[in-house]
Amino acid sequence: MDLESVRDSLIRQEDTIVFSLIERAKFPINSWAYSPPQNGVDAFSASSFLHSFVRESEALHAKAGRYENPEENPFFPDDLPPSMVPTHDYKQVLHPAGSSINVNKTIWDIYLNKLLPLFAAEGDDGNYGLTAACDLACLQAISRRIHYGKFVAEVKFKEAPEEYGPAIRDQDREGLMKMLTFEAVEEMVKKRVEKKAVVFGQEVSLSDDSKGKETYKVDPSVVSRLYEEWVMPLTKQVQVEYLLRRLD
Amino acid sequence: MDLESVRDSLIRQEDTIVFSLIERAKFPINSWAYSPPQNGVDAFSASSFLHSFVRESEALHAKAGRYENPEENPFFPDDLPPSMVPTHDYKQVLHPAGSSINVNKTIWDIYLNKLLPLFAAEGDDGNYGLTAACDLACLQAISRRIHYGKFVAEVKFKEAPEEYGPAIRDQDREGLMKMLTFEAVEEMVKKRVEKKAVVFGQEVSLSDDSKGKETYKVDPSVVSRLYEEWVMPLTKQVQVEYLLRRLD
Repeated sequence: MDLESVRDSLIRQEDTIVFSLIERAKFPINSWAYSPPQNGVDAFSASSFLHSFVRESEALHAKAGRYENPEENPFFPDDLPPSMVPTHDYKQVLHPAGSSINVNKTIWDIYLNKLLPLFAAEGDDGNYGLTAACDLACLQAISRRIHYGKFVAEVKFKEAPEEYGPAIRDQDREGLMKMLTFEAVEEMVKKRVEKKAVVFGQEVSLSDDSKGKETYKVDPSVVSRLYEEWVMPLTKQVQVEYLLRRLD
Repeated sequence: MDLESVRDSLIRQEDTIVFSLIERAKFPINSWAYSPPQNGVDAFSASSFLHSFVRESEALHAKAGRYENPEENPFFPDDLPPSMVPTHDYKQVLHPAGSSINVNKTIWDIYLNKLLPLFAAEGDDGNYGLTAACDLACLQAISRRIHYGKFVAEVKFKEAPEEYGPAIRDQDREGLMKMLTFEAVEEMVKKRVEKKAVVFGQEVSLSDDSKGKETYKVDPSVVSRLYEEWVMPLTKQVQVEYLLRRLD
C-alpha cells in the first residue's frame, strides 16, 4: 500500500458515493423512517426504523465477515455477532490503535439531519424498506471513505515519520491538521466529485439533443458541498486521531 | 400509470442495473461464496453462502415492508416474516393473478452462472460479505426490471384489450410473444444500456486527456448482452405469463 494505491481507492470510492446518492434520490424523504415511534417508551422502541434496519443489517453483515476488513467500520459496533466465513488474511497495515477510531455517530447525524434534506424530495411514498436499504448504502459508502483516512495517515506517516514525529509527541492536533491540509488538492477533489455527479446523474439518451442534459438526479453542488463540509474535514479528523495514537 | 410512466421507470431502472454491476466489478469473482460447503450434509448447509445471505437479507427486508410493494419479488418467498412498518396503500394496478408470477429462480441461475463470469475478474480477495451485498443489489435490480413486465403487460392490455383478448382466450403463448416483440425498440434499448455502461463506467477526471477514457469498469458489450439475451426475453416471458392470466 502506497500513496498511489490509496489515492486510487479514494477516487474509486467517490463513484460509489455518487451512485448511492443517486439511488437514494429515487425516493422522497420518507421522514417516518427516521422518527422515534410516537408511543415509544423504552430504549429500543424510542429508536427509529432506520436505526433498527441498520443495526440488523450490520449484524447480518458481521456474520458475513464484513467487519473483518479493516476498511469497514460499523455504526453499531456493540454486540455484533462473530464472522461465520473463512478467515481472510487481511494485510495488517494499520497500527492496532487505529481500530478504536470510529466517527460514525457524527456521520449518521450529518447524513440524516444535514445531507438528506439537501437532495431528497419532500414527501412520503411508503417505501420505507427500500429507502432504508438506500440509506444504508449511502452511510456505508461515506463511512468507508472517511475512515479510509486511517490508511491515508499511515501511508503519509510511513513516508515521512520524522516530519510527523514531533507533532505526535507533542499531541499537537492543530499542528497535525495543518500538516494534513492541502487546499489546492481539496479544491480539485471538490471539482471532481461535482463533475462525477454531472456525468453519473445525467439522463443518458441515444439522441444528441440537449433535453434533460441540464437536470441531474442529484444536484452536483450538493455532492461538492458534502465533500467540502463533511467528507474532507472528517477524513482529516480521522487522520489526526490516528496519528495521535501512531507512536503508542 | 400509463405507457409513458412505465417507460420512464424502465429507463431509470437501467441506471440502477448499470450502477450495481459497476459496484460488483470492484471485487473478483470470489467463487467460495457460491459453492456449497464441502462438508455440507443437510439441506441448509448444502446451500451456498450467497443463498443464506440473500435469504436472511430478504427476511429483514420483508419486515421492513419491501415486498408490500408489488414491484418487488423475493428470491426466497417461503416463510418470509410479515411487514412491521405502517401499511402503505399501494395502487392495485395489477390483476391479482400477477402476484403468482416469479421468475427469480431463472434470474438467480443466469446471474451466477452466465452473467457474473462475464464481468467479474478471476480471483479471491476474501471479501465475501461485501461481495454478497453487491450481488444482492444486482439481483434485486435485475429482478425488479424483469418483473416490471407485469406492469408493462397490464398497461398494454388496458390500452387495447380487444387486441390481446383472442390470443389470451386461446392461451396462445407464441401469438402473444409476437405481439409483444418490437425489434427496433429492443435494438434501441440495447444501444442505450451499452451507452450507459460507457458513461457511468468511465474514469471521470478533471483533465481532458484521453487517459482511461477507453477502459470501462464493466465491459459495455456485456451490459448490452445482458439485455439482449436475458433481461428483454425474460421481461417478455413475464408479460406473456401475466396476459395468459389476465382474464381469469
